Amino acid sequence: MATQGQVITCKAAVAWEPNKPLSIEDVQVAPPQAGEVRVKILYTALCHTDAYTWSGKDPEGLFPCILGHEAAGIVESVGEGVTNVQPGDHVIPCYQAECGECKFCKSGKTNLCGKVRSATGVGVMLSDRKSRFSINGKTIYHFMGTSTFSQYTVVHDVSVAKIDPAAPLDKVCLLGCGVPTGLGAVWNTAKVEPGSIVAVFGLGTVGLAVAEGAKSAGASRIIGIDIDSKKFDTAKNFGVTEFINPKEHDKPIQQVIVDLTDGGVDYSFECIGNVSVMRAALECCHKGWGTSVIVGVAASGQEISTRPFQLVTGRVWKGTAFGGFKSRSQVPWLVEKYLKKEIKVDEYITHNLTLGEINKAFDLMHEGGCLRCVLSTDA
Amino acid sequence: MATQGQVITCKAAVAWEPNKPLSIEDVQVAPPQAGEVRVKILYTALCHTDAYTWSGKDPEGLFPCILGHEAAGIVESVGEGVTNVQPGDHVIPCYQAECGECKFCKSGKTNLCGKVRSATGVGVMLSDRKSRFSINGKTIYHFMGTSTFSQYTVVHDVSVAKIDPAAPLDKVCLLGCGVPTGLGAVWNTAKVEPGSIVAVFGLGTVGLAVAEGAKSAGASRIIGIDIDSKKFDTAKNFGVTEFINPKEHDKPIQQVIVDLTDGGVDYSFECIGNVSVMRAALECCHKGWGTSVIVGVAASGQEISTRPFQLVTGRVWKGTAFGGFKSRSQVPWLVEKYLKKEIKVDEYITHNLTLGEINKAFDLMHEGGCLRCVLSTDA
Repeated sequence: MATQGQVITCKAAVAWEPNKPLSIEDVQVAPPQAGEVRVKILYTALCHTDAYTWSGKDPEGLFPCILGHEAAGIVESVGEGVTNVQPGDHVIPCYQAECGECKFCKSGKTNLCGKVRSATGVGVMLSDRKSRFSINGKTIYHFMGTSTFSQYTVVHDVSVAKIDPAAPLDKVCLLGCGVPTGLGAVWNTAKVEPGSIVAVFGLGTVGLAVAEGAKSAGASRIIGIDIDSKKFDTAKNFGVTEFINPKEHDKPIQQVIVDLTDGGVDYSFECIGNVSVMRAALECCHKGWGTSVIVGVAASGQEISTRPFQLVTGRVWKGTAFGGFKSRSQVPWLVEKYLKKEIKVDEYITHNLTLGEINKAFDLMHEGGCLRCVLSTDA
Repeated sequence: MATQGQVITCKAAVAWEPNKPLSIEDVQVAPPQAGEVRVKILYTALCHTDAYTWSGKDPEGLFPCILGHEAAGIVESVGEGVTNVQPGDHVIPCYQAECGECKFCKSGKTNLCGKVRSATGVGVMLSDRKSRFSINGKTIYHFMGTSTFSQYTVVHDVSVAKIDPAAPLDKVCLLGCGVPTGLGAVWNTAKVEPGSIVAVFGLGTVGLAVAEGAKSAGASRIIGIDIDSKKFDTAKNFGVTEFINPKEHDKPIQQVIVDLTDGGVDYSFECIGNVSVMRAALECCHKGWGTSVIVGVAASGQEISTRPFQLVTGRVWKGTAFGGFKSRSQVPWLVEKYLKKEIKVDEYITHNLTLGEINKAFDLMHEGGCLRCVLSTDA
């Protein structure tokens, strides 16, 4: 590679400060150090977590930074000691790392690898605690260890999944966040059984992926809850069998659902990030066994609450991050499932734009009709 | 039996109104109707739930009533259609019924039988929704379907466990509530594995039974937390390996525990009924897998809260009632375990009094040195 070992100057969408439109800039991307991988990003989608940090409400948010964490690309070069990928490999950056060696990875109980978290949480790389991004010498921070709103990015080797090169990158970029989060919440975290009654709060990409996962797990009823009734038609295609708009009911939504289901649902999923909805999702669960999984990310400082009696009488409150999937091991498996048409991906893509149109893409995200907008970076 | 089919007049401790000393009265106990069993109670212990309802803080509490739910006795007579017990059988009344036929019993997922709850929750029997207790024609309500502070009581046939007659009733009466609740929280609800690190909040009978259960499950460290350091010596005998008094620390207790355990415990148990402690118990759990079980009963209207991030990062919040044990099936099994010296019971009994001394027994319960006080009823 002509660029190996060199600083690459490329286009990236920089968030200079909270809430100001992203700005397409010429960014210098330093070569990968030991244990790092430089990736040419070809396609990136947007997710609500990007918007949350951009809004300035995320206390961990650092500016200026390059956002983005749901993408696909090709390895440009690797740093010393990197063995899991090589230049030319097709990859999906993984905001949730998997080192295979830490206490978390070895536990067999969680996907929350701890190896690079201390660095990715503060926008730098682990080896020297510095950023690989700069503009004329000024540091631009990383985001979630991925920073995919750039034509090139540098990630830790434990944060990149090598995938089948036959997979279309403009589609499987979605397997970097939202779709696995929903599927995994059902398959890994809740472990929904055939015949179960399921409630899904919020019918965006993650909620629809929950519905899809529940359908494939054999759920008998999948109740979709959203304040935008226009979403129901699309939701049917992902497996939702019944729809409830809380705005059309006077009773608390948990009571509506309990009444509809002879005592409550077996599993519920909160896919919005609203702490009041999280409570409703728990309380619509059946006494004795109902399990509620928090999938959405609430704003910092907000708290969930309920009466302890809800738990003492057998309900279980859990949460999930990246659907409990081990990223480097299981993202390639999800890609294979997509290639075998066992999971949907294309159906979540409602818009295609270019990196240069990213501000328009953020606007779209807040409209009901948009699920995922995929940006090409080579425009 | 000379008394079969007759009203029996016997002594009982009546709670005429909240917070007033219980009064030993001559009570008329009607014969059991279809599906009911009249039991001669020989020994009854006291539990904090009795004290809670007596205090008037329980919105379900009805007065006048006969409290008590941890006891043992002998069947005096049975109503029509009762086949699971007969006169002379040694039994433990079970406030948590097990019918084997309802949605809950058939689910295989919970011990919370629903068959008689609608009646026991309002102090009456299911068949005619009336009480079997009266004093000169005035109705005295049942409590928790057991009302064991009486020489005779009437319970539903689904609420009585037949036990080995070789078992000493003055000891195994404790298997009606507190000890199974603690053991089962560990064995059935949390399913603690060998090598686990466990935290137990509150070192009363239930907390000590949690420690005992954790020890038998092979826990490597059992951390006892209590604001009364005098309890530590006793706690050691039940398996507690380390002791923390929150009063001796400036930091929040969850932080103290996280620091002591390289990130948190695998399992925690709240055995007090304090919603702030319930939060600490959740938050002292290890990221990725720590599970917290609410065992204590909080006062009505109180709520638990935490940041949803605690759950999204892998902690699980659960609760348990009667330790998840199926009462009629498993109480006899616990009695056998006691007879084989596989579980402690005698060690929880710190005081023995008579039913006539019940107010003194309630006073004792609030003293640190008292675990269980067993009352004989034939005094």
